[in-house]
Amino acid sequence: MIKKYIMTPGPTPISGQVLREHGRPLMHHRSPEFSEIFIKATGKLKKFMKTENEVFILTSSGTGGMEAAITNAFSPGDKVLVASTGNFGQRFKKLSKVFGLDLIAIDYEWGEALDPEDIREALDRDPDIKGVMFQFSETSTGVLNDAMAVGEIVKDYDGITIVDAISGLGASEFKTDEWNLDIVIGGSQKGLSAPTGAAFVSVSPKAWNLIEKSTMPRFYFNLLDAREAANRKPPQTPWTPAISIIVAINKAMDLLLEEGFERSFARHKLLAEATHKAVERIGLKLLVKDPKDRGQSVTSIMVPEGIDGKKLSNIMRTKHGVTIAGGQGKLKGKIIRIGHLGWVGMFDIITAISSLEMALKDLGFDLDIGAGVAEAQRVFYENKFFGE
Amino acid sequence: MIKKYIMTPGPTPISGQVLREHGRPLMHHRSPEFSEIFIKATGKLKKFMKTENEVFILTSSGTGGMEAAITNAFSPGDKVLVASTGNFGQRFKKLSKVFGLDLIAIDYEWGEALDPEDIREALDRDPDIKGVMFQFSETSTGVLNDAMAVGEIVKDYDGITIVDAISGLGASEFKTDEWNLDIVIGGSQKGLSAPTGAAFVSVSPKAWNLIEKSTMPRFYFNLLDAREAANRKPPQTPWTPAISIIVAINKAMDLLLEEGFERSFARHKLLAEATHKAVERIGLKLLVKDPKDRGQSVTSIMVPEGIDGKKLSNIMRTKHGVTIAGGQGKLKGKIIRIGHLGWVGMFDIITAISSLEMALKDLGFDLDIGAGVAEAQRVFYENKFFGE
Repeated sequence: MIKKYIMTPGPTPISGQVLREHGRPLMHHRSPEFSEIFIKATGKLKKFMKTENEVFILTSSGTGGMEAAITNAFSPGDKVLVASTGNFGQRFKKLSKVFGLDLIAIDYEWGEALDPEDIREALDRDPDIKGVMFQFSETSTGVLNDAMAVGEIVKDYDGITIVDAISGLGASEFKTDEWNLDIVIGGSQKGLSAPTGAAFVSVSPKAWNLIEKSTMPRFYFNLLDAREAANRKPPQTPWTPAISIIVAINKAMDLLLEEGFERSFARHKLLAEATHKAVERIGLKLLVKDPKDRGQSVTSIMVPEGIDGKKLSNIMRTKHGVTIAGGQGKLKGKIIRIGHLGWVGMFDIITAISSLEMALKDLGFDLDIGAGVAEAQRVFYENKFFGE
Repeated sequence: MIKKYIMTPGPTPISGQVLREHGRPLMHHRSPEFSEIFIKATGKLKKFMKTENEVFILTSSGTGGMEAAITNAFSPGDKVLVASTGNFGQRFKKLSKVFGLDLIAIDYEWGEALDPEDIREALDRDPDIKGVMFQFSETSTGVLNDAMAVGEIVKDYDGITIVDAISGLGASEFKTDEWNLDIVIGGSQKGLSAPTGAAFVSVSPKAWNLIEKSTMPRFYFNLLDAREAANRKPPQTPWTPAISIIVAINKAMDLLLEEGFERSFARHKLLAEATHKAVERIGLKLLVKDPKDRGQSVTSIMVPEGIDGKKLSNIMRTKHGVTIAGGQGKLKGKIIRIGHLGWVGMFDIITAISSLEMALKDLGFDLDIGAGVAEAQRVFYENKFFGE
């Protein structure tokens, strides 16, 4: 009996209540019973994303959502700007190239946040840029980019913003409309803590203007078809949706709404802070050096000299049942990542840090067993994570 | 307490065992635990499709699988042939146009099967046709096309076959390799009786030759990336897959393998025959006039003069808890469709026919209550559906 703990930045832990809903018998996707759930789930996602824009649920991973944004908003040859802060920024760049866009890229060090002023300068240099793409939370590094500042800048230009908020939504405050963000992409398996397999995208009126003019060939992810289907009575999806995932999203949103978004953000803030402090107390270094660049979804930790990162996470998984993530792209082998996103409480952090300490000890790393855990406890205790 | 019966050609009923697996906590998609399930599920799908070709599981509806086939196999301007026998044939045509292919279409009456000789003639006229697309089971009409005959013809030409076998697999014998079929598309929510949200495609060496040369822009559905990821050790998917659906597919395949494919086909044959005979006994007409064109997945029934098809299925659903499907495309309002596909037994047919009789009676249709049910019972009894 090894109890399992999933501490990755997606998939995130799923509560028993959500799993129970996910595993109920399926209703037909054109039945009134499903329509009711579909309407409710979409409405709750709008609250989640703080938007009055239309929100569409796609049956795909988050990458499908990114492709949907790009193939709908642009036409071949369009000039676009990608501000890349990690592996998912690279994905925006690859997508742009594959679909024949004229790509301008600003590449930041992995572990640093973007500088909104760079985007302003790029737009001033090339006012015909049709879209600015960036990650809110860059899952591969744990950096949180200032989406509000980017939105504030881009709104005065012709181009739109496309924001991958997949791993940021739910963990950090995010205001689609107030921040003037045009296409925002989310995923089911991150802050929502629902199963993998669905993405959702919100689309602003400014983005619809581009979408209606786009000559890019697209079918499965065509948002004009999605809008047409959503405007039917009752609203539908153009293709058979992932029914059981939408049912789970609907339930997962209830749990989040019950907690309240503000409290959820505060919870994630403490989960992140406790993780950061505990890791530093152990004697490890965080990838994201500047504390103001650190997000609240995932903590990237430098694998210390002389330690094999792969072995470290293998020990945690096989001996302790704790699954964490490794590095992606050029950070492969160089970092480990602890997710603290979604249905996560303080004892999950205590568990992860405890496991990390014991695994490091196994590999001969010099540390005081329990010191990191005590540090995390102190953060939770002093900040009254558990209320008054 | 209204017990619910889903009698549509997708989603199909899901057994409690599969739902239980579907609703278990998710493991990480890069964990050894998931790898093992992923390898097993893919291996079982190969048996299901009777192929040694690579099989890829995509997180999408079946339409995503169709798009994957087209955007990977062809380049813009390629000449393709679609033999269309209904709504899903039309979808192949739309996809071909959207992605800039040079489309030759052969359109059959909805309710008739394709004639393989027409395909031979078309290939002789245009030997530079790169691909022939058709449905094995056309879900919108219930017609079963002769995939073996088409494969036998096309194998001697340069072009490949792309077969939408989404609603046919599991219900009717299908042999990908023996029948020389190049790209075959299946879906999770049909004969497999797993939840909606995943498609799978098999790819022959002849198809890889085209795929490797394709200049079509594609990313999310890029099968070269899927192949690269599948060849990693352990095998992976390029993007986060629908974990809980793959877990369900793996379990659903076990149930099918336990029954045995031959017995499953024989079961579907009797389910279809009992439905056809019962419907005719009631005094209704089948859409597919020629018995040899009728498939074993779904029965399309002409809505009789003076009866409102929408009202009919509404009564069945709201009063009896029995969900059937209506017509699609130009058959909307003209037919109703009873699915008898996947995890379906003889008493499900008895239930559906019984509900249909009572709903027809409600709407003033002249019939002997119970006569259709008795006819279905007779078919099951005389053919020893339940064994010796």
